[in-house]
Amino acid sequence: MRALISVSDKSGIVDFAKGLQNLGCEILSTGGTYKTLKDNGIKVIEVSEYTNSPEMFEGRVKTLHPKIHGGILHKRDDASHAAQAKEFGIGGIDLVCVNLYPFKETTIRTDDFGEIIENIDIGGPTMVRSAAKNFKDVIIVTDVNDYDMVLEKLEKKEDSYEFRRDMMIKAFEHTASYDSMIANYMNERFNGGFGAKRFISGSKVFDCRYGENPHQKGAAYEFDSFLSLNFSQVKGEASFNNMTDIHSAVAIASSFGDAPAVAICKHANPCGFAIGENELDSYIKALKCDPISAFGGVVAINGTLTKELALKTKEIFIEVIIAANIEDGVLELYSDKKRTKIFTQNNKYLVQAGDKWDFKHIDGGFVFQEKDYVNDDEVKNANLVTTKKANDSELNDIKIAWKIAALTKSNCVVYVKDATLLAIGMGMTSRVDAARAAVAKAKDMELDLNGCALASEAFFPFRDSIDVASKVGVKNIIQPGGSIRDDEVIAAANEYGMSMYFTGVRHFLH
Amino acid sequence: MRALISVSDKSGIVDFAKGLQNLGCEILSTGGTYKTLKDNGIKVIEVSEYTNSPEMFEGRVKTLHPKIHGGILHKRDDASHAAQAKEFGIGGIDLVCVNLYPFKETTIRTDDFGEIIENIDIGGPTMVRSAAKNFKDVIIVTDVNDYDMVLEKLEKKEDSYEFRRDMMIKAFEHTASYDSMIANYMNERFNGGFGAKRFISGSKVFDCRYGENPHQKGAAYEFDSFLSLNFSQVKGEASFNNMTDIHSAVAIASSFGDAPAVAICKHANPCGFAIGENELDSYIKALKCDPISAFGGVVAINGTLTKELALKTKEIFIEVIIAANIEDGVLELYSDKKRTKIFTQNNKYLVQAGDKWDFKHIDGGFVFQEKDYVNDDEVKNANLVTTKKANDSELNDIKIAWKIAALTKSNCVVYVKDATLLAIGMGMTSRVDAARAAVAKAKDMELDLNGCALASEAFFPFRDSIDVASKVGVKNIIQPGGSIRDDEVIAAANEYGMSMYFTGVRHFLH
Repeated sequence: MRALISVSDKSGIVDFAKGLQNLGCEILSTGGTYKTLKDNGIKVIEVSEYTNSPEMFEGRVKTLHPKIHGGILHKRDDASHAAQAKEFGIGGIDLVCVNLYPFKETTIRTDDFGEIIENIDIGGPTMVRSAAKNFKDVIIVTDVNDYDMVLEKLEKKEDSYEFRRDMMIKAFEHTASYDSMIANYMNERFNGGFGAKRFISGSKVFDCRYGENPHQKGAAYEFDSFLSLNFSQVKGEASFNNMTDIHSAVAIASSFGDAPAVAICKHANPCGFAIGENELDSYIKALKCDPISAFGGVVAINGTLTKELALKTKEIFIEVIIAANIEDGVLELYSDKKRTKIFTQNNKYLVQAGDKWDFKHIDGGFVFQEKDYVNDDEVKNANLVTTKKANDSELNDIKIAWKIAALTKSNCVVYVKDATLLAIGMGMTSRVDAARAAVAKAKDMELDLNGCALASEAFFPFRDSIDVASKVGVKNIIQPGGSIRDDEVIAAANEYGMSMYFTGVRHFLH
Repeated sequence: MRALISVSDKSGIVDFAKGLQNLGCEILSTGGTYKTLKDNGIKVIEVSEYTNSPEMFEGRVKTLHPKIHGGILHKRDDASHAAQAKEFGIGGIDLVCVNLYPFKETTIRTDDFGEIIENIDIGGPTMVRSAAKNFKDVIIVTDVNDYDMVLEKLEKKEDSYEFRRDMMIKAFEHTASYDSMIANYMNERFNGGFGAKRFISGSKVFDCRYGENPHQKGAAYEFDSFLSLNFSQVKGEASFNNMTDIHSAVAIASSFGDAPAVAICKHANPCGFAIGENELDSYIKALKCDPISAFGGVVAINGTLTKELALKTKEIFIEVIIAANIEDGVLELYSDKKRTKIFTQNNKYLVQAGDKWDFKHIDGGFVFQEKDYVNDDEVKNANLVTTKKANDSELNDIKIAWKIAALTKSNCVVYVKDATLLAIGMGMTSRVDAARAAVAKAKDMELDLNGCALASEAFFPFRDSIDVASKVGVKNIIQPGGSIRDDEVIAAANEYGMSMYFTGVRHFLH
């Protein structure tokens, strides 16, 4: 048996090579890997010696040689291949262990384009792909975490066809990720992120029991280990729909710095939100808006799931609680709540990945865009367009309403008082219908909207929503402005003695 | 100048090679390409002769040779590289023209895994990547459509750094697509589509003026040329939000075979739908439900945008009309409607890509699932759970309501009568609120819901929505069933003399 080892990340490589050597394996290697192995007492042959062809052009050409690739690629069970290998003195290479030049790390470390280009690996992916193509005869190892497993398979002679095939799939995932990363990097550097092709690639974190519905299969994928690092399933397993609800709930709850905000979401839209004295107080207030929809909902807590909060949440059926962190002894309290799932980020506050991009499937393709974020300055710099001005406490409600509106499906209108969401209309084709539905619901719930702040994520096309708002006592309004009927809308606000602020920024969300 | 040509798709290659030869270029080639060029009178050197190394293992090893890759990869302006090239007799290769073994076409043609594996190109991607890495010195050509352009650049000596860099980006897009396709194929074949990594890659069809909002950049990407083949912008340019609205509107309008269905969407949800005698009749009826929301909406027509329909649509502001096809002379009718955009699919009926997969961005990753489709059998095989049974005409309304409900954002309730959508509540966190909002709107519009069919995309958790429905005279209901309170819900339907059908299939959509 003969192995070729050429790795950029050298962790674990000495032990792996030793293991292979103990199995009677001859080891070929190049450059830095050769030196590391040799320095650690491993008997290793340099590729240039093996091929009788020198390493050239500062390492740009090392392994691109027929003796290497013939050694990898020839079919062992094909008589003509075997004869040809013998004729040209090409020995089989039966295991290839390669990881690639750190392209991504280089782009993070430097902007020097020459250095970045130098970190595009050519020989590495070629060996990976050659070995993967001939996986029946060659084991391809691309992950430093697989070394022990591979040695065990070889020791126990369990390196089956299926095992080799799995390694082949992993190898093509590796090269596909690498070139996707290079193409995206180049398009971000030179084409503003919108080049001729766009690659979205993710690593699976877990299979879901099913997708959006039971007849669909589904799974969750991550970029850059974000979920692996920031999402712990401490009780129960997240469903597909849980993940999209969590996305919305965490975005809202984490939008207010270190405030102990609590957001409750259903169908990826908020039905409860508050910032109270502490997490418990926030939760109690967040339930006010729509305790019925909260049933089976997802609760995001920008802080700690304390014991007293846990006891409170047990009063109704909450399907998911995701908290920045969890007080010791809380899990035990849920032992009688089989269906409630508890997730955490192991953090002081909820964190977001800060994704730069956003995308959406459409029939036969996708739309791709810069991700939308709500900036604190949007409220700070908003233009007062009415005679009346909001006071500081009202401005706080305005800010909260604005951020919630930006993170709720369009069309939406959001009513907030005393840092508590009291009514919300969302996802509807008509804005005034959303305004009315929210008011009707608040009436059912016997909630007093008098003194509320109202936010709309896009401009009011008519004064009708202002009329609806006035009837329940809304005092302050925030919206982007920009309608051809802004004058009419401002006049309505003045007529009712409301303040109105224009942000100039729209936040459609679909 | 020296060029290396090795192509799987040979279209245009003879003319390109002739062009290069006329520019004084020496041409190297392999296998089938060599033969084609030679047969067409081009002076061409075989790579095996050039490297003095035979083609081996049925073509698995041809170009993986230091003389080839050294020739591509050495930096021309680096003295040590130049000296080394001279020392080892390595001449520069200044242009590489490669396209890859047809992996995808092979997987479509056959299931034979050996043949599929044989169509994983190793030498090709390596040459492409080598040349791309050294783009400063080497032009990399991977697209048969670029041949004339490349010749022109060379003739006019306009092969600038920026041009070569663009070709490099295209080259990495090419190899990234290729390996993404291989990895996805292997995961679909062996891991049910949910392997350790998932690659979503698309080709840009157009840049949008902006993304979901004006402060976001955005663009539309396609799979397998679906939009290029099935989406013509005959008047105006599609915006980002137009594309998502079109996605929804076409899905609904194309769900009823050859019926002249018309769907009107806003914010990716329907606010109008009907199947009438013809397209005009359907449009007039589709406007009934919510002519106010239809303002600025997207209209999808499963048939022809005729002149009489065009005149009718001009009565209000419709932002987008997408029709399967367009009658001659229609465009002129819109000359005074600057803001109305008209798109077509150049087809008899609207077509869908039939995507197998669906995905959604979440913070730090994405969720991926099998795409949801509504099956005609769902209504045909639905279980009658009440005493009353629907008649044929009622069953038709039931079918329409069910399909619309499946394609509307959850929670939704849909009221249909005489093949016309009369009321709809959607995107809300509470189902009964959606039912009520729809009814309130219908009342405003003075629409008579008496005799309607009602559909809900997921089960009714309580009888409350049935109570709401009874008050406006709903006669037939379709829903998945499956609530722990189904008995209560069925009892309510029986109490009101309604029919109720359970499909057993849920269609959440978010």
